Amino acid sequence: MGFAEIFVWEMLGTAALILLGAGVVANVNLRKTLGFGGGWLLIAFGWGFAVFVGASIADASGGHINPAVTLGQAIVGNTAWSAVPAYWVGQFVGAFIGAVLCWLAYKLQFDTHDKPQDTLGIFSTGPTVDNKAWNTVTEVIATFVLLIWILLSPAASEGPDGTVFGNAALGYAGVAFLVVAIGSSLGGPTGYAINPARDLGPRIAYAVLPIKGKGTPNWGYAWVPVVGPLIGAALAALTYLALPV
Amino acid sequence: MGFAEIFVWEMLGTAALILLGAGVVANVNLRKTLGFGGGWLLIAFGWGFAVFVGASIADASGGHINPAVTLGQAIVGNTAWSAVPAYWVGQFVGAFIGAVLCWLAYKLQFDTHDKPQDTLGIFSTGPTVDNKAWNTVTEVIATFVLLIWILLSPAASEGPDGTVFGNAALGYAGVAFLVVAIGSSLGGPTGYAINPARDLGPRIAYAVLPIKGKGTPNWGYAWVPVVGPLIGAALAALTYLALPV
Amino acid sequence: MGFAEIFVWEMLGTAALILLGAGVVANVNLRKTLGFGGGWLLIAFGWGFAVFVGASIADASGGHINPAVTLGQAIVGNTAWSAVPAYWVGQFVGAFIGAVLCWLAYKLQFDTHDKPQDTLGIFSTGPTVDNKAWNTVTEVIATFVLLIWILLSPAASEGPDGTVFGNAALGYAGVAFLVVAIGSSLGGPTGYAINPARDLGPRIAYAVLPIKGKGTPNWGYAWVPVVGPLIGAALAALTYLALPV
Amino acid sequence: MGFAEIFVWEMLGTAALILLGAGVVANVNLRKTLGFGGGWLLIAFGWGFAVFVGASIADASGGHINPAVTLGQAIVGNTAWSAVPAYWVGQFVGAFIGAVLCWLAYKLQFDTHDKPQDTLGIFSTGPTVDNKAWNTVTEVIATFVLLIWILLSPAASEGPDGTVFGNAALGYAGVAFLVVAIGSSLGGPTGYAINPARDLGPRIAYAVLPIKGKGTPNWGYAWVPVVGPLIGAALAALTYLALPV
Repeated sequence: MGFAEIFVWEMLGTAALILLGAGVVANVNLRKTLGFGGGWLLIAFGWGFAVFVGASIADASGGHINPAVTLGQAIVGNTAWSAVPAYWVGQFVGAFIGAVLCWLAYKLQFDTHDKPQDTLGIFSTGPTVDNKAWNTVTEVIATFVLLIWILLSPAASEGPDGTVFGNAALGYAGVAFLVVAIGSSLGGPTGYAINPARDLGPRIAYAVLPIKGKGTPNWGYAWVPVVGPLIGAALAALTYLALPV
Repeated sequence: MGFAEIFVWEMLGTAALILLGAGVVANVNLRKTLGFGGGWLLIAFGWGFAVFVGASIADASGGHINPAVTLGQAIVGNTAWSAVPAYWVGQFVGAFIGAVLCWLAYKLQFDTHDKPQDTLGIFSTGPTVDNKAWNTVTEVIATFVLLIWILLSPAASEGPDGTVFGNAALGYAGVAFLVVAIGSSLGGPTGYAINPARDLGPRIAYAVLPIKGKGTPNWGYAWVPVVGPLIGAALAALTYLALPV
Repeated sequence: MGFAEIFVWEMLGTAALILLGAGVVANVNLRKTLGFGGGWLLIAFGWGFAVFVGASIADASGGHINPAVTLGQAIVGNTAWSAVPAYWVGQFVGAFIGAVLCWLAYKLQFDTHDKPQDTLGIFSTGPTVDNKAWNTVTEVIATFVLLIWILLSPAASEGPDGTVFGNAALGYAGVAFLVVAIGSSLGGPTGYAINPARDLGPRIAYAVLPIKGKGTPNWGYAWVPVVGPLIGAALAALTYLALPV
Repeated sequence: MGFAEIFVWEMLGTAALILLGAGVVANVNLRKTLGFGGGWLLIAFGWGFAVFVGASIADASGGHINPAVTLGQAIVGNTAWSAVPAYWVGQFVGAFIGAVLCWLAYKLQFDTHDKPQDTLGIFSTGPTVDNKAWNTVTEVIATFVLLIWILLSPAASEGPDGTVFGNAALGYAGVAFLVVAIGSSLGGPTGYAINPARDLGPRIAYAVLPIKGKGTPNWGYAWVPVVGPLIGAALAALTYLALPV
């Protein structure tokens, strides 16, 4: 598959991911929405099923929609290193587009929100307690779980005793349940970026879009949700290579 | 499949969709119910699984239960244009019947509700901030996501690297997860009609049923959840045709 | 399959259904539990996944665990009328046993509850507005949806356009999602018995168990959740027979 | 499969289980998290999907990640008794590691929590009403349900009437739904350990980790969530052997 095709699929899938993912936070955080105050489980399911939708759309290119996934798949040899730039460019462009679409869908709610300076959290993640080293640790751990599951998943089709559990039959719902799990369980400290494009693309969009009364994009934190997920993915890929698969 | 069969299946499936979909909002909004105040995630799952039930019931005719889905399938060539009227008539009639059944199931709760003039939202959608152009944009974006997933879904059965993710194995649960995602994420501004029959059929029912103390059907807004979804579906179908599928 | 086998499987499956179903209401309603005040979505998922567990356990006998399902399957000819008594006896005995197990699991919480006279709702359903004719209508409608889906479900494996949606691949999760939908959407007025054994078995258990400070079993309402589901199931089976399946 | 391989897979899977399972409780209980006060359904889904992730990861060894499951599988003859030590050691070591990782992921939140002496519940279970005999009964009942479903599940692939419900096609999502059901329904009195490693491993971690301001590990209760699940699993296995499977 050539650069253009990988780019198109990953761009489309990541745009859907961010439109829906940022969308659920907009729905919960902005005052004039029907989902205002909807709680963390709504956010966890919203992001989890956003991955389901986005990965399904990007199925033709493998449904990565996350530079950390692409890195992990490249390290273990499932994705050619020469294809990585097409994936990454598509993912970042798609994430930016998804953030713009989310803003358009919630335009009236952004314009009428009572704390417009606090809307960065709709687009990008941030820590509840600011300590970049420990925030990075949290992102490393969460992304490690994401990648080790994804890498082991194709093998998880039958057990040694003739049991026929088959995650393969779950389609992208398997990844969705995984992301609901990670969000429910490890999203508390930093908002679980676990995906550099998911965080940086919308942060750039927040910086450039004419969002009424908007606050700062908090560039000082921007490297954490890029570096943490990449480290976590690399560690998971190296662990996978060491396993007796 | 002839007009009568398509009509029957789409009518039955859409009636189930609206009975359950309007039902969950009745359960959350009406005071004397067990689900009163149940929150947005309950509504998102209620509508999402209502699509699961309705589309399963209408499986023989393809499980459209939505004029926008039929339009998209016709544009890409999966459904004959000559069959579209049977789909659309069945869907609107079914939506009306589903709304009547919902009212019957919640008759006592409608009769004892303390704000009977505010019950339109159980039947039809409305904006949290009134601006018909932007409300239409929101419906266009949400329906685009619905249709692009549905159109790409049959292909999403295996990845390029031998991964065997298969949405095909999810049955109509895949569509349910998609609609939970759209409702969680893009339902905040306008209540996510994403389906002209889902909105107009129950609105007509609200206008003609003898609901105790009822308010206005808000005809001025009625075109938005018809036009927006049709535009979104058409755009998704045209995008699909341009993709290297 | 003989009387004894059908009895055993349906008894086991229905016991699991009621243990988990009554259990989730105990968890939400009793004061000294971790799930106290957990809300309607918790109850809807608790009951829905209780059906998943119970029907899986009773898979050998078809996973009915509901006299109304057995009636519907008998009317359409999937279950022999001669087998119906084995199903029904197993289901009622199992429901009674499940209610006893729920009481044992929550014994300390029943003993320390601050309103012990209000614990009938953990075992059996009741209306939010008392009007037995309309309450019956609600149960008829909800059970009609349950049965029409179950009867149509085996056919819902592929669509007319080559789409390969397959509810068959969902296992009993399909029924679970269906019951989550019905509970979310139609459970508001009467607590969705939709199963005579689910309501009458635990009501008898409530009457005979030495539950500390317990209230009345409300025998005056007891026929509604028996008659309503049976009517709804019969209507769905007759509708199914009239459909061009 | 040799000791080392079983050990590695069960260790990895159980570590993921506890990292995510303890993680969701940390997210709900610790004050400076995004999920603070998230409610019981969040916890039920968090633990349920944690089982999905952990069991998938440990698929090569059968995905036990629970000494009670291993005991049940050994009693019915699916797992060799000689392999049991490898499973158990892997599970306990993994549970300890998972608890440590959870503490690291939430380090800043543990350090800033306002009631640090009340954090044992993040790691290990405890009763809402203290009575060790009845607490054990609750754990026995809940684990019986877990095991009887797991043991019967491989057979639950088709019904007697040609219905093709197939839990096999659910992969480890089936176990996840089962655990969501058990948590929703039977988790109220004791926090549903249903797994000796899940409780004892993190309790030891809580005792030895330098958690700021931590309280007591409550050793007096520690035997209940070990003994109860083992009894429940053994009873389920013996019941299974008596069934006409």
